[in-house]
Amino acid sequence: MYRAPVGDILFTLKSVSGLADVLAAPRHAELSEDLVDAIIEEAGRFATEEIAPLNEIGDRHGTPLKDGEVTTPPGWKEAYAKWCEGGWNSLTGDPEFGGQGLPTMLHAAALELWNSGSMAFAIGPTLTIGAIEALQKHASPELQEKYLPKLVSGEWMGTMNLTEPQAGSDLNALRARAERADDGTYRIFGQKIFITYGEHDFTDNIVHLVLARLPDAPAGTRGISLFLVPKFLVNDDGSLGKRNDVRCAGVEHKLGIHGSPTCTMAFGDKDGAIGWLIGEENRGLACMFTMMNNARLAVGIQGVGVGERASQEALAYALERKQGRAAGDTSEGMSPIAMHPDIKRSLLSMQAYTQVARAICYSNAHAIDMSQLAEDDAAKRHWSERAGLLTPIAKALSTDIGVEVTSLGVQVHGGMGYIEETGAARLLRDARIAPIYEGTNGIQAIDLVTRKLPLSGGEHIRGFISELREISGSARASNREGFTAMADRLDTAVGDLEEASEWLLAAMADGRMGEALSGATPYLRLAGVTLGGALLIKGAVASAADTPADKKRVQLARYFAQSQLGQTGGLKADILAAADAVLGYDAEALAS
Amino acid sequence: MYRAPVGDILFTLKSVSGLADVLAAPRHAELSEDLVDAIIEEAGRFATEEIAPLNEIGDRHGTPLKDGEVTTPPGWKEAYAKWCEGGWNSLTGDPEFGGQGLPTMLHAAALELWNSGSMAFAIGPTLTIGAIEALQKHASPELQEKYLPKLVSGEWMGTMNLTEPQAGSDLNALRARAERADDGTYRIFGQKIFITYGEHDFTDNIVHLVLARLPDAPAGTRGISLFLVPKFLVNDDGSLGKRNDVRCAGVEHKLGIHGSPTCTMAFGDKDGAIGWLIGEENRGLACMFTMMNNARLAVGIQGVGVGERASQEALAYALERKQGRAAGDTSEGMSPIAMHPDIKRSLLSMQAYTQVARAICYSNAHAIDMSQLAEDDAAKRHWSERAGLLTPIAKALSTDIGVEVTSLGVQVHGGMGYIEETGAARLLRDARIAPIYEGTNGIQAIDLVTRKLPLSGGEHIRGFISELREISGSARASNREGFTAMADRLDTAVGDLEEASEWLLAAMADGRMGEALSGATPYLRLAGVTLGGALLIKGAVASAADTPADKKRVQLARYFAQSQLGQTGGLKADILAAADAVLGYDAEALAS
Repeated sequence: MYRAPVGDILFTLKSVSGLADVLAAPRHAELSEDLVDAIIEEAGRFATEEIAPLNEIGDRHGTPLKDGEVTTPPGWKEAYAKWCEGGWNSLTGDPEFGGQGLPTMLHAAALELWNSGSMAFAIGPTLTIGAIEALQKHASPELQEKYLPKLVSGEWMGTMNLTEPQAGSDLNALRARAERADDGTYRIFGQKIFITYGEHDFTDNIVHLVLARLPDAPAGTRGISLFLVPKFLVNDDGSLGKRNDVRCAGVEHKLGIHGSPTCTMAFGDKDGAIGWLIGEENRGLACMFTMMNNARLAVGIQGVGVGERASQEALAYALERKQGRAAGDTSEGMSPIAMHPDIKRSLLSMQAYTQVARAICYSNAHAIDMSQLAEDDAAKRHWSERAGLLTPIAKALSTDIGVEVTSLGVQVHGGMGYIEETGAARLLRDARIAPIYEGTNGIQAIDLVTRKLPLSGGEHIRGFISELREISGSARASNREGFTAMADRLDTAVGDLEEASEWLLAAMADGRMGEALSGATPYLRLAGVTLGGALLIKGAVASAADTPADKKRVQLARYFAQSQLGQTGGLKADILAAADAVLGYDAEALAS
Repeated sequence: MYRAPVGDILFTLKSVSGLADVLAAPRHAELSEDLVDAIIEEAGRFATEEIAPLNEIGDRHGTPLKDGEVTTPPGWKEAYAKWCEGGWNSLTGDPEFGGQGLPTMLHAAALELWNSGSMAFAIGPTLTIGAIEALQKHASPELQEKYLPKLVSGEWMGTMNLTEPQAGSDLNALRARAERADDGTYRIFGQKIFITYGEHDFTDNIVHLVLARLPDAPAGTRGISLFLVPKFLVNDDGSLGKRNDVRCAGVEHKLGIHGSPTCTMAFGDKDGAIGWLIGEENRGLACMFTMMNNARLAVGIQGVGVGERASQEALAYALERKQGRAAGDTSEGMSPIAMHPDIKRSLLSMQAYTQVARAICYSNAHAIDMSQLAEDDAAKRHWSERAGLLTPIAKALSTDIGVEVTSLGVQVHGGMGYIEETGAARLLRDARIAPIYEGTNGIQAIDLVTRKLPLSGGEHIRGFISELREISGSARASNREGFTAMADRLDTAVGDLEEASEWLLAAMADGRMGEALSGATPYLRLAGVTLGGALLIKGAVASAADTPADKKRVQLARYFAQSQLGQTGGLKADILAAADAVLGYDAEALAS
């Protein structure tokens, strides 16, 4: 039974990731800490009572397609309506269009809760929020007025149509085409795949955002435009008009998130789907990029959500299930497996890594908020760079953690973990998509090394590393038992991160791009594990009282520092030494 | 399309894992290297042509249960019959009962091929072979004569019935009961769960080996007896008599290996299932232990099999799929993703780790063979200890590798990897059971630390470590480019292994058992990765020519040494430093 970790979430927001900075901004003058508490408390209730029960039925039922219509699992449509009624869809939307204008940090926390409830359910509205952002920033006032209020309220949902069979990670290869019509609209033709919630019965209308090329567009990504293509055309009075020429041509049979319809969308089978340009012609990619940071963070948070759920379920099982006799157990009969050291290690790992992912994602949300709230340009730039630096880490590390933690969850359940009815395997199946979509984790690592490390000529990462050292300084200064040992571990890890960062910066400055790219994936892990350890220690330093929750934070930080931070030496060695071996890869020989 | 890696298998058997020692034994005088080549070649053909096509249909069809009868997937029964006709079931059986008496090394190699074809198919006969071993070693001549010829030929299949709902890893808690009948037989009552191939339509009869307690048995594992309970009673002329009182009460709905029926078996719903004692009363566990090493190795080999298949499929996809432009690609248009450094790293990891698992499993098989073939007691003891040392590593590391490599395989396929039709996700689903069954990997790690490390007072592991140092010595002596760097990496890893081993031995000698148990899982990984690196380097040293296969081996060894061996420092630190944090685990706080 899922229990919303409201205490952990609020502590992380406030004592680890800097919520106070955000609340201090004039824009959020009316948002008090008490109000934040109340919102998270209520979101936790909704996730627990309304969303968590959906996941199993969604997994079993899937989203069958018949005659172009997709049926969502029983109870899902009703839960979505209730969720919108509760105002949860409009948290971050612009108040001008009915949104509540709350900070990204709060949205991140709520999103964790929805994803713990059901990743397959939560991903739909996440896409809508992406569409809202794109429209808020780039669409004409007419389009905004017509579409935003209903997208913000959740009366309609939105989608993102990027991928085509030949163009997954590489948008240069997009082929969908758009033709100009005489009335200023466009006609869209082409097929898109892997479209999340491309068709469903939650809402009367679906607003597709579609990347396509105009006939005279330049080749590559500079020739891509973004269009709004509604499922039903919208009359001037806001009522629905005729069906547009877009249909769902197939629903994928996936490993997990069965409740989320992943659609093949056919645009323009007849006369062309009627579309409206968003932003300028051939500037579609810029429109996409503005929303990409938030979407990547949202996927990272999926890792937090499933990790939290898996951790809770494994702990509950380990406290209940009895096997063997643990040393020190003075009770009668068999011991709960949670008392065996090897299971303790698994449970500690699950909780510590989940908290690492949470703290990194919330800190990323903080940076996104501050990049908008900061008052001067230098601060805006600083936070914008910080958001840029943290986004690939939040996305990739957290989703890898999602897979690792759910897989540990299966393992803690033993044989029962492999039985679908237990639910542990379902979490692993769900979690496995997140390292893939919204830019694979390999692409995140490349983004981190090639675009984020060099920000401000390397000075941004250097400042970031100094901040990590301040955390070990504060741990040492606390003079608490065991904290110096944690600080020592962190300092070593930060030293490894510094050395690897400088090595990569030097390699790129020398034009040894292949060497830098070879080390991208271990570098992301190195940066993420070091940052994660630092944030756990920061949380431990802030946990001065002796409540169970305080003890837990100290326990997790100590475990992570002693058991997991030692991996940074090997990661650094991998980055510095393995490039030859990676680049020397000989496909012909490997295929022999 | 799966291609049997006959060259890799034969090279590993001969040049890495010591097949020559086994062939030199008088018992195998008739087994030449040429014959080994021919057997593996033919097994590869059978696995590719007959077994590999079964897996997808098995996954979709499953094994439905109706009126107590289990139907296997279309084509599976026919493939099993063909497999038996080919003599594959009788490879290792005693010649006295129609077996071919071939060494475990050969069986291990063939088993890899069957598992690459289909884990769900291969696991059934693996259980039969376990039953054959138990009967060969412990059953009365009458039982042997009646059952062994048909089990060895594959006309009947065998099962192992250990687990009960309350007794998974802890056989002390077994409740199934046996009553003595007047005619020297027994009546068995109780329910067993997770019984692989407990019911199916491959064969006319199924021979269940069942652990149960006699009414006057001592508590705990010293009160467990092993019984033979056939599905159909067998008349003296070998024909089938009446149905025994045992039935399949349910088939599990599992994450993977859907083609393998995992059954709940009900014994004695009516008058009691008629059973025959194997070995002595209350000595059932000893009977089980004799077969456990081989069964654990067999599960380790499942990791090799799925890892190999996933590696092949990912490489084929990465050579075909084009996205983006790789540096150095001089051809037109997009590059195969196999040319991008981050994908190269994934492909190298998949192949290197699969080869690590293969080399360790074959070396384990070699030790098992030598423990039977060695001529003097000291050598027998040495090889028996070596088999004991390697078995938990082979089981746990290889099955972890199976999960890691199949998960990387999903990742290399990108979005397509998450679609079930691609097959990559199916391999991950299949692989995920292997770290759980036949003793969870946590239990393997505990076995390694508490029972295998202390063999011969720690002298066995010390000798093993010396052998690893000899490998780095030979790499250095080869004077080939890059080999000294590999040797340096290996020496560091071996030093870490040595330090951790001595620390654990000292902890256990001091009675600090909890500290030793806390480090069990990272110790197994440390030992496995170090041994794996050593065996890859041994293979590279033996690859002096310049064929593509030789180049591949050098490439994989270099990648593993430079990229992966560096993790041993962190693992050592984890073992030495994290015990306090693990043992200090406070369940109450963690559940807060």
